[in-house]
Amino acid sequence: MPILESLPERLLLGPGPSNAHESVLRAMSLPLLGHLDPAFIALLDRVKDGLRTVFGTRNAMTLPLSATGSAGMEAALVNLLEPGEPVVIGVNGVFGGRMAEVARRAGAQVTKVEAEWGTILEPGRMIEAIRTVRPRVVAFVHAETSTGVCQPVEEIAAAAREADAMVVLDCVTSLAGRPVELDAWGVDAAYSGTQKCLSCPPGLSPVSFSDRAIARVKARSTPVQSWFLDLSLLAGYYEGEKRVYHHTAPITAIYGLAAGLDRVLDEVLPARFARHAAAGERLVAGLEAAGFTPLVAPAHRLPMLTSVLLPERVQKAGEASVRTRLLEEHGIEVGAGLGPLAGRIWRIGLMGENARPEIVDRLLAALRTLIG
Amino acid sequence: MPILESLPERLLLGPGPSNAHESVLRAMSLPLLGHLDPAFIALLDRVKDGLRTVFGTRNAMTLPLSATGSAGMEAALVNLLEPGEPVVIGVNGVFGGRMAEVARRAGAQVTKVEAEWGTILEPGRMIEAIRTVRPRVVAFVHAETSTGVCQPVEEIAAAAREADAMVVLDCVTSLAGRPVELDAWGVDAAYSGTQKCLSCPPGLSPVSFSDRAIARVKARSTPVQSWFLDLSLLAGYYEGEKRVYHHTAPITAIYGLAAGLDRVLDEVLPARFARHAAAGERLVAGLEAAGFTPLVAPAHRLPMLTSVLLPERVQKAGEASVRTRLLEEHGIEVGAGLGPLAGRIWRIGLMGENARPEIVDRLLAALRTLIG
Repeated sequence: MPILESLPERLLLGPGPSNAHESVLRAMSLPLLGHLDPAFIALLDRVKDGLRTVFGTRNAMTLPLSATGSAGMEAALVNLLEPGEPVVIGVNGVFGGRMAEVARRAGAQVTKVEAEWGTILEPGRMIEAIRTVRPRVVAFVHAETSTGVCQPVEEIAAAAREADAMVVLDCVTSLAGRPVELDAWGVDAAYSGTQKCLSCPPGLSPVSFSDRAIARVKARSTPVQSWFLDLSLLAGYYEGEKRVYHHTAPITAIYGLAAGLDRVLDEVLPARFARHAAAGERLVAGLEAAGFTPLVAPAHRLPMLTSVLLPERVQKAGEASVRTRLLEEHGIEVGAGLGPLAGRIWRIGLMGENARPEIVDRLLAALRTLIG
Repeated sequence: MPILESLPERLLLGPGPSNAHESVLRAMSLPLLGHLDPAFIALLDRVKDGLRTVFGTRNAMTLPLSATGSAGMEAALVNLLEPGEPVVIGVNGVFGGRMAEVARRAGAQVTKVEAEWGTILEPGRMIEAIRTVRPRVVAFVHAETSTGVCQPVEEIAAAAREADAMVVLDCVTSLAGRPVELDAWGVDAAYSGTQKCLSCPPGLSPVSFSDRAIARVKARSTPVQSWFLDLSLLAGYYEGEKRVYHHTAPITAIYGLAAGLDRVLDEVLPARFARHAAAGERLVAGLEAAGFTPLVAPAHRLPMLTSVLLPERVQKAGEASVRTRLLEEHGIEVGAGLGPLAGRIWRIGLMGENARPEIVDRLLAALRTLIG
């Protein structure tokens, strides 16, 4: 298999995937078990426990969905919304916009609360919309991967619950890199991806649903539009004494996630969060010294995803060609801007295994050789 | 990671997953690339080419969907059906029934053509329904994993095309184990899974859509209900010169599939099919000698999935407890019956790497020690 043997080595400092630790990659090559094998079910149960810890929840319905993070988003929205129901969605980047599109396709009445990309959703505006619309669901993004903004959650979630709305939170980029506290915050449904701060390969979407959310799903008057993502059906396989076949779980990916969670929990979460915070600060300082300007105000920066406006000499050289040289000459991937930020920013991820000072320094040194 | 290090070794002779070859498992542990890295895109393009060969098609839109086989089924149906449109679905097992349920949730008008589990769908009855209903889509299962029946495709597909209906075919269990000829048969959309005769881990659903199917999707008057499975959006990442981010492709799983396809194509398809056929025949002969009775008539048996009615002494011992002993004492997994066949049959898979005489003999020897 020449093409596989000749894959280049990359330091993945884009918006994800991040690099996986050797122990995770090793786990991916373990021989397969059947998805109903008691040994596999025991492993799956341990993975669910680990996910509860990183999500900050006791939700029974916490599991690695058998698809990527976008499917987790879709699962949260299509289970909790019925056609015609009102939903308030915060949109200050690609992923809030994607939520609105997913909800629209599920037949919901979507009210968007928009904010400039690179800023947070003002809680007051979200709360006003909640009180006006009286939605069934309020959905927003904790860590906007398209901008690097970290959204304060609690005030909006409290107002949503007061209005008897379900709270859906996108934790794709935050999970295992900074505190996520679903139970304390009052979040009813959250989803993430394995390829960010969990430092596993992409392919699974950790999700968690509160008992309140499950009760809402059970009380639906219409079937969930997706058979594959229907929580009531998924519960038959992921919960309870006797596990019933729904679909074939991706065994190998779950091995990888088990190994990844082992590393996360061995490190202990507060230490892991501190490591991400320190790496993010070091990166911002270094980039500022090199002429880049952070897009996001200090109070709302994500440590694991830094978005920076480009200095003039990068713009002149063509930002895409500088990224290509970074990849080809230094083996380092960073991310481009999306939507209105395309061509204007880079997105630099320090996620999971990569949130370390030596990684930051390697990137800064490479940048110096390219742009002086 | 004690739980990962102590996983048991299993010979997977159930309805899938099957065992993966060492080269596939090794590929799963290669370091990650980004999903937009030119080196990864080149690998992905090679995987798409390999899938075209096993699907017997030149369809441009042939790709490994980032979820398991059931999501492939859902992708085929929700892209090709709009609410209120008529669909004819053949149901002679679990997976035909699942198709009907997926189509119902997509708002389609479902006409089921049913046949007894263990028998084929009579082409005459399918054709009659097609001529009466004039459906937009005709969907059925090539290799019914719940019964071991291989369905003749061509006559039904021709009648469907004559009625200007799209033909959707479930090839989950057949792909790479017996001939699949989408173009010759006139199939417009097909899906499979990686964990059967491709002998890769579960997690991806190879799918293929004809240009005719893509044109139908583009001409829709309503959006595809699933953002994650929307073919027009997927095309932006999987096709063309410039690849646009849609979701993060599961890099590692695609490495595994690349290695799996290498083995499939190195063996050459006719030899692989002959190996599956020979293994299936050897298994049936051995099981008959041991008192089992094949469920399916000889002309319609799948070589890679044999379903057998149980001899009295297995029923008396309790079929589940015999399966448990086979797993615990011999490390061999076989599958139980589903639905009306639960408790009445076993389903024994000889898929991909496991379709070999020595594997058959190992199973038969283990059975002899358990049931004499």
